[in-house]
Amino acid sequence: MATVIDGRQLATELNQATAKRTAKLATRGITPGIVVILVGDDPASLIYTRNKHRRAEKMGIRSVLEKLPADVDQATVMAAIDRYNQDDTIDAILVQEPLPAHLDGLAITNAIRPDKDIDGLHPINLGKLYANQPGHYPVACTPRGVMTILRHYNVELAGKNATLVGRSILVGKPLAAMLDNANATTTVVNRYTPNLSKVTRQADILVVAAGSPHLITREDVKPGAVVIDVGINRLPSGKLTGDVDFNDVRDIASLITPVPGGVGPMTIASLMAQTVDLAEWRQHGQE
Amino acid sequence: MATVIDGRQLATELNQATAKRTAKLATRGITPGIVVILVGDDPASLIYTRNKHRRAEKMGIRSVLEKLPADVDQATVMAAIDRYNQDDTIDAILVQEPLPAHLDGLAITNAIRPDKDIDGLHPINLGKLYANQPGHYPVACTPRGVMTILRHYNVELAGKNATLVGRSILVGKPLAAMLDNANATTTVVNRYTPNLSKVTRQADILVVAAGSPHLITREDVKPGAVVIDVGINRLPSGKLTGDVDFNDVRDIASLITPVPGGVGPMTIASLMAQTVDLAEWRQHGQE
Repeated sequence: MATVIDGRQLATELNQATAKRTAKLATRGITPGIVVILVGDDPASLIYTRNKHRRAEKMGIRSVLEKLPADVDQATVMAAIDRYNQDDTIDAILVQEPLPAHLDGLAITNAIRPDKDIDGLHPINLGKLYANQPGHYPVACTPRGVMTILRHYNVELAGKNATLVGRSILVGKPLAAMLDNANATTTVVNRYTPNLSKVTRQADILVVAAGSPHLITREDVKPGAVVIDVGINRLPSGKLTGDVDFNDVRDIASLITPVPGGVGPMTIASLMAQTVDLAEWRQHGQE
Repeated sequence: MATVIDGRQLATELNQATAKRTAKLATRGITPGIVVILVGDDPASLIYTRNKHRRAEKMGIRSVLEKLPADVDQATVMAAIDRYNQDDTIDAILVQEPLPAHLDGLAITNAIRPDKDIDGLHPINLGKLYANQPGHYPVACTPRGVMTILRHYNVELAGKNATLVGRSILVGKPLAAMLDNANATTTVVNRYTPNLSKVTRQADILVVAAGSPHLITREDVKPGAVVIDVGINRLPSGKLTGDVDFNDVRDIASLITPVPGGVGPMTIASLMAQTVDLAEWRQHGQE
């Protein structure tokens, strides 16, 4: 029977550590600041943004919400990015996905100052991660949270087969880079992979971020594998569930994340921790 | 018996196409320019640099050699980079590896203007490739040459298992990104991988760039696989050989590159082609 990863407990511990860091910064008169740019009225995005806001304020991070109408034009969004790029009270800029289709999301991402790029999506930050460059740069928060989980549970990575189902730029790709940097043998599958099960059954560490409820069942998992489920899917019943059939898989995995309560809480906690990182790195750069 | 890839013939064709492009640019008064910055007197680097120079001049590309002494300091190298960054007659900047250990190679790479970064090593170019961003940006020339070979021989990539032995930033990593972008299921192995043979035997496309002569023998290759050998090793006899034991593997592969005469000629031909790309893209940007 697998050990079930307690993402909420880990997130609580990380949040406490982050709050201590902001308290220490406060003694020097520094308040880390994050702006969330939200375009339109997508209800899920609104809830998610409000949660981030509350969480940030709770731990001594100033949180600004820049709400733009659904029909905002590209130039207005770019001007907002530029304003926060130059705003010294803002350390982290987050553009809430999804953006309306009429906006050029790539141009928006590429316009964010790399040292305020809290999602690690700017190509220069992606490239540094990919090249395993030393030094300080932000990375995507979900993969960062997953790596914290793996470290916390002492999961050996060097020489292990790490397989990622999903290759989004927010999860699969940066996590593949992090696992490769940690010397795992890393495989990235995609929707063209003909025999998914054959590939996933070889994984010592299986990360699933496909956005497909219960895509992975026990037949797809190597006995003793570490299973990390990044999927968050809402079933017709309203219940949240992952990309992994948790009840089916939990007795053959060695370690598994539940949904909810696994990767999710660590994503937002990692976002807060990295906001403080960005503030400290910028501060350090200015001293 | 495998079809043996004729890298020299393919390179000749690509060079002819490149020469036609420079001739066309010449009618508009434009001469693509490349500078090779060579630090020290490494004999192999000197030969390689001279070969590049001759090849470039032959096809209508202006080639500048900036030779710096082995004990040059960091500031002098950075000043040279800065000068060529601003020099409008130079479209491509190549810093010849290896650099002496006292120099900070990463700082030098990161200082090259991304739109003159002929090796595709600047993190912003790496990141764009990794994110599969559209638009024009340079990529590493050896992987570019390998992709040209695979396309020329109509190798199907989507849904195929592509495995890379080696994860350097000049070959393995960017090629993994290109193969993933072409929808292959991509695995990157490294020196921590415990059972290399078990992994490589699953590859439909096996790329070897480990710098280890005859690392791969027939036991490591799936029958019918496409085998791309990026290794160039000099044996004690003086003979060049690859990372793949060509004679041992050729009768079970479906398609295989020889060494020499496989990937090598395509690397330099791709370098020339991309120099002309850079000139055209910069020209386009200025019009």
